[in-house]
Amino acid sequence: MIRRYVYGNVIETEAVLNKPEQENGALPYFTVDEQAMTLSYTMEDKDQIYGLGENVRGINKRGWYYESKCSDEPDHKEDRHSLYGAHNFLVVDGKETFGIFVDYPGIIRFDVGYTRSEELVITASDWNLDVYIITGEDIKDIVRQFRHLVGRSYIAPKWAFGYGQSRWSYMSADEVREVVKKHRELNIPLDSVYLDIDYMERYKDFTLNNEAFPDFAAFNEEMKKEHIHLVPIIDAGVKQEKGYDVYEEGLEKGYFCKKEDGSPFVAAVWPGKALFPDMLNKEAREWFGNKYQFLLDQGVEGFWNDMNEPAIFYTEDRLKDVLEELDRFKGQNLDMDKYYEFNGLVHSLSNNTEDYKVFYHNMNGEKIRHDRVHNLFGYNMTRAAGEAFERLEPDKRILMFSRSSYIGMHRYGGIWQGDNKSWWSHILLNLKMMPSLNMCGFLYTGADLGGFGVDTTEDLVLRWLELGIFTPLMRNHSAMGTRVQEAYRFEKIDGFRHIIGMRYKLLPYLYSEYMKAVLRDGMMFRPLAFDYPEDRRAVKVEDQLLLGDGMMIAPVYEQNAEGRYVYLPERMKLVRFKEDGTKEEEILEKGDHYVEVALTDVIFFIRPDHLIPMATGGQCVDEVDFDHPECIGFVDNVAEYEYYNDNGYEKDYENPAHITVLRMEAEK
Amino acid sequence: MIRRYVYGNVIETEAVLNKPEQENGALPYFTVDEQAMTLSYTMEDKDQIYGLGENVRGINKRGWYYESKCSDEPDHKEDRHSLYGAHNFLVVDGKETFGIFVDYPGIIRFDVGYTRSEELVITASDWNLDVYIITGEDIKDIVRQFRHLVGRSYIAPKWAFGYGQSRWSYMSADEVREVVKKHRELNIPLDSVYLDIDYMERYKDFTLNNEAFPDFAAFNEEMKKEHIHLVPIIDAGVKQEKGYDVYEEGLEKGYFCKKEDGSPFVAAVWPGKALFPDMLNKEAREWFGNKYQFLLDQGVEGFWNDMNEPAIFYTEDRLKDVLEELDRFKGQNLDMDKYYEFNGLVHSLSNNTEDYKVFYHNMNGEKIRHDRVHNLFGYNMTRAAGEAFERLEPDKRILMFSRSSYIGMHRYGGIWQGDNKSWWSHILLNLKMMPSLNMCGFLYTGADLGGFGVDTTEDLVLRWLELGIFTPLMRNHSAMGTRVQEAYRFEKIDGFRHIIGMRYKLLPYLYSEYMKAVLRDGMMFRPLAFDYPEDRRAVKVEDQLLLGDGMMIAPVYEQNAEGRYVYLPERMKLVRFKEDGTKEEEILEKGDHYVEVALTDVIFFIRPDHLIPMATGGQCVDEVDFDHPECIGFVDNVAEYEYYNDNGYEKDYENPAHITVLRMEAEK
Repeated sequence: MIRRYVYGNVIETEAVLNKPEQENGALPYFTVDEQAMTLSYTMEDKDQIYGLGENVRGINKRGWYYESKCSDEPDHKEDRHSLYGAHNFLVVDGKETFGIFVDYPGIIRFDVGYTRSEELVITASDWNLDVYIITGEDIKDIVRQFRHLVGRSYIAPKWAFGYGQSRWSYMSADEVREVVKKHRELNIPLDSVYLDIDYMERYKDFTLNNEAFPDFAAFNEEMKKEHIHLVPIIDAGVKQEKGYDVYEEGLEKGYFCKKEDGSPFVAAVWPGKALFPDMLNKEAREWFGNKYQFLLDQGVEGFWNDMNEPAIFYTEDRLKDVLEELDRFKGQNLDMDKYYEFNGLVHSLSNNTEDYKVFYHNMNGEKIRHDRVHNLFGYNMTRAAGEAFERLEPDKRILMFSRSSYIGMHRYGGIWQGDNKSWWSHILLNLKMMPSLNMCGFLYTGADLGGFGVDTTEDLVLRWLELGIFTPLMRNHSAMGTRVQEAYRFEKIDGFRHIIGMRYKLLPYLYSEYMKAVLRDGMMFRPLAFDYPEDRRAVKVEDQLLLGDGMMIAPVYEQNAEGRYVYLPERMKLVRFKEDGTKEEEILEKGDHYVEVALTDVIFFIRPDHLIPMATGGQCVDEVDFDHPECIGFVDNVAEYEYYNDNGYEKDYENPAHITVLRMEAEK
Repeated sequence: MIRRYVYGNVIETEAVLNKPEQENGALPYFTVDEQAMTLSYTMEDKDQIYGLGENVRGINKRGWYYESKCSDEPDHKEDRHSLYGAHNFLVVDGKETFGIFVDYPGIIRFDVGYTRSEELVITASDWNLDVYIITGEDIKDIVRQFRHLVGRSYIAPKWAFGYGQSRWSYMSADEVREVVKKHRELNIPLDSVYLDIDYMERYKDFTLNNEAFPDFAAFNEEMKKEHIHLVPIIDAGVKQEKGYDVYEEGLEKGYFCKKEDGSPFVAAVWPGKALFPDMLNKEAREWFGNKYQFLLDQGVEGFWNDMNEPAIFYTEDRLKDVLEELDRFKGQNLDMDKYYEFNGLVHSLSNNTEDYKVFYHNMNGEKIRHDRVHNLFGYNMTRAAGEAFERLEPDKRILMFSRSSYIGMHRYGGIWQGDNKSWWSHILLNLKMMPSLNMCGFLYTGADLGGFGVDTTEDLVLRWLELGIFTPLMRNHSAMGTRVQEAYRFEKIDGFRHIIGMRYKLLPYLYSEYMKAVLRDGMMFRPLAFDYPEDRRAVKVEDQLLLGDGMMIAPVYEQNAEGRYVYLPERMKLVRFKEDGTKEEEILEKGDHYVEVALTDVIFFIRPDHLIPMATGGQCVDEVDFDHPECIGFVDNVAEYEYYNDNGYEKDYENPAHITVLRMEAEK
């Protein structure tokens, strides 16, 4: 059951399409304090809190506070409160079990037992909230109802389930060709190569660096013959440059965000000074969305939207002020206080919350200051693209994922988990975010495998891939200036080929589970707590996940480890695929196990009477035979599997012909 | 066996006091490349590498590169290469087992299978190395020989094994009184309160803020009646201020580090512009050491030396240049490259390696550029103090620990593990550093419990204390601007009282093991690998430690966890002390166990036929009865324990009367 409670004058986010009538009574479970602008709930010791989408720390969010404030945050450390997304849905599980979604576009804080261990306190920035309380049979049912409320998740094309290689940046078509050639020569599967900001002409959206990427349409064609999709990046900021058509046109039409006085708001990002299209203005959104046609026309079938929190390196006005202020320090003896002031000034330039208070949107004719709707910006940039794709390419699935997001955006694209680091702890963070994102509707997601920032190591990339082969978005991406980390740069080529190859063998199961999760409002990745709520040990597990119907995964995330502990909430079959091509199966009893996992082993677990349909693999998704899956199963009696498959490009998702039931009986 | 090999003209570090004759033959195990300035060793797959003292990452250092370059590094992230210390000793364990100590005062890199997984490559900055190769019966024997080579470790007074409370900063005597009062009122034991930089008059060493701390000698006296020791900080930089005696005197005598032209090198730290005493100049060192008398005279019996890498906020010359350079950016449109240049300029101000190349030391009359001896600075600052204490207070043990260090400094003081963060991962880092520091002679050590930087949580402090009660230095410390974290600030007062109280019950064992480790060149904290080298599972354990003769510890380091996995390399007894005062014992078989550990439980394990002498506790070390220890044991047949105890203040360490043999027989 979903009940809706409204406080104040709500700004419409369009996260929910068919809103239930609002209730008149008191908000259940919570104490409401309008003065303090808080909703408070008293937890019991054993209560666990799930959700909040893209955030640091545990699957169980208890013991920290989180702030929904879309942020360009490159340091996903334990002490962060915000990442790129704003996902205000959580489930309280304990004495009471219920979900709460606070549909609110401004900055909002969730203190989950941080200030006082038993208090869950939600504090908004103003008192205009649309609050949904969801109850149901169990957590999965609550999530299902919530997901139905916010609408069906985005569906990616099948090729986007292949392995993607990215770098900030491949600087030319020849560099891209080299990446593809190396993978093909070494028989390391590959389906896409990502183009970061340098494919553009001086970081201008919807332009091409024609010297480095001459005849881009022909290059796309050439790559497609190799079964490779090029996926260019699009940034939120439009370069301020006389004669640049997107800038000139947007300016003329008044489509950019404006300052109080109506002049354009100028902030610097990659290209230097830039303007932000007013993504919250329906007409501007349509206009910006149509710009993607420039690249669709060249054969592009996928994009990633970046810098759309929006990130701000500095604003024109603030930089001027700061540089003048810095003059004050000349010739001075800076003691601690002054030195901190100096550093503070410089740090205040980037992503300064105050800068979100000096520009405005035009939402259906109403002028709204950005900070009140801050969390909707990235969402509506991606919506601009998604709505445009529906107009421009109605019969095609276009790959789209974004850095910033809000619930609602999940209907238009996926997200990647942002600018992580080549840290072992970020393998685990990647894992922990999968279910919380799934709860909020983000199913097409994954992290930058091998780590984006700082230098990686070979074993880190291998171990991370052993998780990454299971996530819908499987992309190896790394930052300028860091150690190169394409598979072929390392020594253990056979290992990379094996692990990445396993992704292609697993595709029938992974794609089927992804599609069923989308079409049935389910979670592809679940904490053990959701399926074994009565098992206190299972409830506390933070480093294993259930994946779809019949699989449990438990990757290794510690350097130099030769195995790891796994808790089995019931008897399961351990399946191990070794680099030498052999497969080992072992049935393990419910309970604790130390499982050896060699550096290039791929392992997973199968639940009793469940099947995992697999293929023989391929060098690209096109080569994978989805039509004749071979099942491996753990069958005590009889196992049946609802296998979803379609051609991966068309949109007749609901066609019942896509479902086949696979069946296996125990050998007697 | 220790063999010594010399390359080039070695700068004497005095890490080794009685050097063996140098060998003439080739360096064993390694390939030496004088041109590349490298020593290279080829590892096998299963080889593990231990040592390198204070550093991030694993007990097994394999898979990363480390750089010995004493650094003011507040972010102990996985990707760091250097922290505050330079500890060039490591043990290779595998097909070959040996130790190597590169006695070298400049910056030196240890690539432990980072660039190529099987290559250990040591790269110096110039070709003047004193290299020791140590072989022995086993790792413990190799470490013992090495420790004997570098001399006996510093011995702290007994009171310094009590619980210490610190904050940057307690701003007045009254704040300190409040801290003490709260602990005493709530019966939370306490032995010391640390004074951070604000006790001084505008951050000037050997001065007092007389307004905030009037009559400091009387205040010390008052605190001692409460069994509280005040422990002030001393910084490396001496404020440049006319009329300030330390500055004037040092300047007059030429005791500060100088630039090439002989003018004083001016760098800013806490007080603003400051000069660095030339700690490598024997006379200057003696002069600086004598300054501690100012505080000794007021009744102080302990110090911590800080900022002695040395940390540099900015140099006078560089700040001037940077501020002028920043002018260039006025009125410009900063694109990505220019924005990075701008940020780079500002970041270049602090701890810039280039600044270590513009000042000089006077070492026995020779002018030596700082970068060549960079890693000796903090060592010699602490040596200045240690040597002074021998002169000024020959019969007393003075507490001394430092942030920066080099091997050799372990004879004069301990270290704390630097400016960590309130991160769960830093509990584990704290644990992992204990044995690598012990290997290098640093026995009096511990981390800032609860975490120094960023906001903590109550459960983090509790769990961290459950490790901290075992480390010789047990101090809760936190940074300005972060959440206060004294035990009494939280809700679970009974839990804090219990956990901290357990420290005082464990003191007989902990002090005895510390003293035996010092006197016998042993390791108080050891990886399981050192005691169970044949047990491949034990060898890989990175989150448990052996503590002394008979104990194994395995703290919980994950938020919201209700227990953890423990690997037992042999049958052991689990002992659990609960908040309600009860004790539980359980014998567990060799192998894997999931052990429940409630939030305020204290647990440890006892090896078969071993004893742990304990006391009944107390509110301070003075109250602990060391003379009538009661043993808990795990006795199959008979267990004997060599119990070391002395009065904790005198220096007759070797007196055989300090040793008693405790004995327990199994009940038949």
